Amino acid sequence: MNEGSSRLLETIDSPDDLKKIDPELLPQVCDELREFIIDALSCNPGHFGASLGVVELTVALHYVFNTPNDKLIWDVGHQAYGHKILTGRRDQFHTNRKFKGISGFPNIFESEYDAFGVGHSSTSISAGLGIAAAAALRGDDDQQVVAVIGDGAMSAGMAFEGLNNMSSLKSNMTVILNDNNMAIDPNVGGFSEYLVDIATSHTYNKVRSEAFKALEKMKLAGPRSKEMITKLNNSLKNLLTKQTNIFEGLNIRYFGPVDGHDVQHLTKVLSDLKNIKGPKVLHVITKKGKGFRFAEENQTAWHAVGDKFDKITGEMLKSATSSVPKPPKFQNVFGNTIVELAEKNDKIVGITPAMPSGCSLNIMMEKMPDRAFDVGIAEQHAVTFSAGLAVAGYTPFCNIYSSFMQRSFDQVIHDVALQKLNVVFCLDRGGLVGADGATHHGVYDLSFFRGVPNLIVSSPMDEIELRNLMYTAQLPNQGPFSIRYPRGIGSNIDWQQPMEEIKIGTGRKLKDGDHLAILTIGPVGIKASQVIDKFEKNNVSIAHYDMRFVKPLDETLLHEVFEKHNKVITIEDGTIVGGMGSAILEFMVDNGYQAKVKRLGVPDEFIEHGTQTELYGLCGFDKIGIENSISEMLE
Amino acid sequence: MNEGSSRLLETIDSPDDLKKIDPELLPQVCDELREFIIDALSCNPGHFGASLGVVELTVALHYVFNTPNDKLIWDVGHQAYGHKILTGRRDQFHTNRKFKGISGFPNIFESEYDAFGVGHSSTSISAGLGIAAAAALRGDDDQQVVAVIGDGAMSAGMAFEGLNNMSSLKSNMTVILNDNNMAIDPNVGGFSEYLVDIATSHTYNKVRSEAFKALEKMKLAGPRSKEMITKLNNSLKNLLTKQTNIFEGLNIRYFGPVDGHDVQHLTKVLSDLKNIKGPKVLHVITKKGKGFRFAEENQTAWHAVGDKFDKITGEMLKSATSSVPKPPKFQNVFGNTIVELAEKNDKIVGITPAMPSGCSLNIMMEKMPDRAFDVGIAEQHAVTFSAGLAVAGYTPFCNIYSSFMQRSFDQVIHDVALQKLNVVFCLDRGGLVGADGATHHGVYDLSFFRGVPNLIVSSPMDEIELRNLMYTAQLPNQGPFSIRYPRGIGSNIDWQQPMEEIKIGTGRKLKDGDHLAILTIGPVGIKASQVIDKFEKNNVSIAHYDMRFVKPLDETLLHEVFEKHNKVITIEDGTIVGGMGSAILEFMVDNGYQAKVKRLGVPDEFIEHGTQTELYGLCGFDKIGIENSISEMLE
Repeated sequence: MNEGSSRLLETIDSPDDLKKIDPELLPQVCDELREFIIDALSCNPGHFGASLGVVELTVALHYVFNTPNDKLIWDVGHQAYGHKILTGRRDQFHTNRKFKGISGFPNIFESEYDAFGVGHSSTSISAGLGIAAAAALRGDDDQQVVAVIGDGAMSAGMAFEGLNNMSSLKSNMTVILNDNNMAIDPNVGGFSEYLVDIATSHTYNKVRSEAFKALEKMKLAGPRSKEMITKLNNSLKNLLTKQTNIFEGLNIRYFGPVDGHDVQHLTKVLSDLKNIKGPKVLHVITKKGKGFRFAEENQTAWHAVGDKFDKITGEMLKSATSSVPKPPKFQNVFGNTIVELAEKNDKIVGITPAMPSGCSLNIMMEKMPDRAFDVGIAEQHAVTFSAGLAVAGYTPFCNIYSSFMQRSFDQVIHDVALQKLNVVFCLDRGGLVGADGATHHGVYDLSFFRGVPNLIVSSPMDEIELRNLMYTAQLPNQGPFSIRYPRGIGSNIDWQQPMEEIKIGTGRKLKDGDHLAILTIGPVGIKASQVIDKFEKNNVSIAHYDMRFVKPLDETLLHEVFEKHNKVITIEDGTIVGGMGSAILEFMVDNGYQAKVKRLGVPDEFIEHGTQTELYGLCGFDKIGIENSISEMLE
Repeated sequence: MNEGSSRLLETIDSPDDLKKIDPELLPQVCDELREFIIDALSCNPGHFGASLGVVELTVALHYVFNTPNDKLIWDVGHQAYGHKILTGRRDQFHTNRKFKGISGFPNIFESEYDAFGVGHSSTSISAGLGIAAAAALRGDDDQQVVAVIGDGAMSAGMAFEGLNNMSSLKSNMTVILNDNNMAIDPNVGGFSEYLVDIATSHTYNKVRSEAFKALEKMKLAGPRSKEMITKLNNSLKNLLTKQTNIFEGLNIRYFGPVDGHDVQHLTKVLSDLKNIKGPKVLHVITKKGKGFRFAEENQTAWHAVGDKFDKITGEMLKSATSSVPKPPKFQNVFGNTIVELAEKNDKIVGITPAMPSGCSLNIMMEKMPDRAFDVGIAEQHAVTFSAGLAVAGYTPFCNIYSSFMQRSFDQVIHDVALQKLNVVFCLDRGGLVGADGATHHGVYDLSFFRGVPNLIVSSPMDEIELRNLMYTAQLPNQGPFSIRYPRGIGSNIDWQQPMEEIKIGTGRKLKDGDHLAILTIGPVGIKASQVIDKFEKNNVSIAHYDMRFVKPLDETLLHEVFEKHNKVITIEDGTIVGGMGSAILEFMVDNGYQAKVKRLGVPDEFIEHGTQTELYGLCGFDKIGIENSISEMLE
């Protein structure tokens, strides 16, 4: 950081310190905070654009509201870096998203200023309403609850459920709609277009701006204020002939839009709103990546940065090995392979709920725009929309991150599996994901998916297997088919091999052995294989099976395993509660086999953030963990 | 049925037959259809109100649209009885909801007229959009897709996700908003109030009615129609100064409201709409239970009738045993006990997503209206709203049917379990539910809940245990706590005993035994106990343990079991894939025990409808099934 560039920020160890600062100096606080974030992220990568976009809003909120007594909930939480820095975590901020460091999201166990833990989109209104309802029950009329939610997150069903309930409860709650017309990728859907309409309507803005001036005047007017505000609002309504207002349709008072980068105006508006009881929405226009030119210009690329960068040139500083060819990311294998398959099979379509660049469906969206659908942050809809396409004869590849699939479990069961439809679920980010931590680890899918009748549950060990599974899934009449693969890169430089069909429910014997058998699913098989080779050198002979399918299980292979071995280790990058290992136990006991079985995987607890390697180690299925388990079992 | 009362209906074996009928006779068809439904349900109970409310709409839709080529999707599907009767299933209708009979919901395997299988709320827009997108991909510009969705279902997030996506896709799709201001219970929320506003605004109705007259005139006007309609719509917009229109805000054309009981007007309106391309909403006002006075007057009670009734007097014909005192329904034990607990513990609050009468939270809503929340059809919101209340110090009892809990799995994981909040989930309808069939069986919960870290997963064997678990769950700092119990009555007349704490993670030894051990969870333990008694008379001594908790497991008890027994049967009213039985296997193998274990429960397939007793038999865990399994194991 430049010397002396954060002289105000350095005095702020809590919102109380911030409140001591002269309002005229708030823009400087914002500049310093923005600079601090850019500096910090240039050395320690993380979510970038969202936090820069809400610097002024963050400062204004903590300036006006009485946190932590007033409750501030940051939807998703990518944008809470400024909030963390202002609430006593400036000095720890360099540990952001690192193992044992502070979390990249608000976390109730980390700070009393983090009113509610977040991570997945669109929970803030519901959580805030619960907190506000509690205040009402206590008879606490003073506590303010503020949910800050992006326009992308607002398009999700859950946010609508919250809004719908908000007016009934007459709670003392403010929703701040942080409208940057972006989620990670540009937003889609009627609601998004609607917000653009509002935000760009001059008449509308002018009326609104006058309303705010009037509000400011009334602030000191005493008991008649409420009546006047009501009157003003009614007359406003009559003026809004060219705009319909969804929020007011839901009986929620709507204010805005206001400029989200004018901190002084924001503090005034928020102070006024504080005095208006009941549910209300303030619409704030911000720019994602604000103040960092490169991020403003390419918001998707700078949503989250994975590498260190030069803050002057915007250049990403790749690690030294970057000139050596690397295996591709699994997501890119998916993105390229779906296009390759779709070129030959005109029934294939692609669906993503708002993650085209995250899952690489953007490759298909560019090449075949009619056949690739970004349906917005809407996992439930994405699955049933896919089911509709399938019932009409198409083969949708519905790509949803494993942890987000938890949002559409019911739809997978009823709309797809029960109807035996040819929907292919591609679960990206299956397993431990690293720095995003507990809310983003995709560790439950193998367990909850294998309980669904008719659903084929598979996971490839490498890119070539991923391609073969995708090829297999799109063959006619395969029925519901799930393929899960992890975040990050695979293991093959030459991954683009011709594809071949895999017989459903067949695993592979990778290696014969005498002393024990290891059964793996997914890329953890590569690590296991390396450990097995090491034992081989010491004349310990270990059999290795890549199960490939958790459902249906390869019973022929398993009979072979249990007829030959009485020591078995199962390894999966997922929970050991009800996961693949448990499926193996069910087979073993149902078939009257007896063996010593050790199940390696994610233990029955929430796993924090860190690098994937650190977390594999923590869970005991990195190479050392596997080695130790083998040694123990051989004792 | 009265002689000759269905002379028109008798000629209708398909929508083609219906189309041959003179439009002037359509009201008579409606009368006959309504009479048929009332007659049939008076002998064979089922969902009542919804189907009566849409008789005219059903006739009009099949009269106007070219089903099954045009696709008709009935949201939830309770209201599709008339549809089934008109589409070739009149003669099978007496088997509705019976074992091996037709399903109470649309089912793609049952009829080509059932375009998409339903059961849970709010899927129709998403499914319809998928089908419409497929038509667009095929270049089929003629196929019409119509989703009929109630105003209650429209309040759910998933419906909003569909609406939001609808305008982007420019699909040729019509949503019919069937507005009866009821789901099962009266609707709640801003959206519901908004619809009442629209529907009762005279100016608005008048304008709309004139618009329709104009539309009718334009129908034959040829190529200029489209332009004129656009013009008309714009001018309409300018007139709607007192109403905001949410649908038009989302870029979806809105038409209505129209009288849903005027079949001739409906056919005209639908014919006109057929010619308007693009996404649109028709708002139809209906009355739930229409044409049956008793149902109109008490819509909640007549949503679904469980008994035969006298169609003249509206009197329910209780079965002969009804004068003998019966044990209470589990739902009423919940409903009364939460009030009893809440009277002593002022931190207890109750939450239901739109099922106050279904789960009996209505008892609390009447006695403590401030402390019981019906949040609308919004399971995701219900859970996170509960989490908000909990983080603010309250102890919410969030009651959600087991199969509906599949909608809020992500929120349970992140918003409650990860934050270790004191939310008590009461899962009513856990296990096989009977006549509602595959979409409503609550058979996955034990399996997917036990994978969630920090979550206590319990199920009582009887009413007294349910009360004790509820008592235990509300004690301070218990953390996330789930209690699941089935549909139907319990086993104790004297259920209202003083409550006592149950130590978390402890089961009960109900009976010692030598020849094998039976481990049960939930009320299936009662049946098991009776079977065990029978064996005892033949000197076969069987131990019986009520596990009570699937998580944490009672390890002390399990050590006792496996130290003594090498033959074990587990029984649960839930899937055997990853369920309690699998948890027992995990314990057994982890601890180095070896035993023959048979897991009884719901097999890995979707179970059809029938009485609960028939389905227990089908799955092999009724008394005969249990007896057979014991005998087999003892062989």
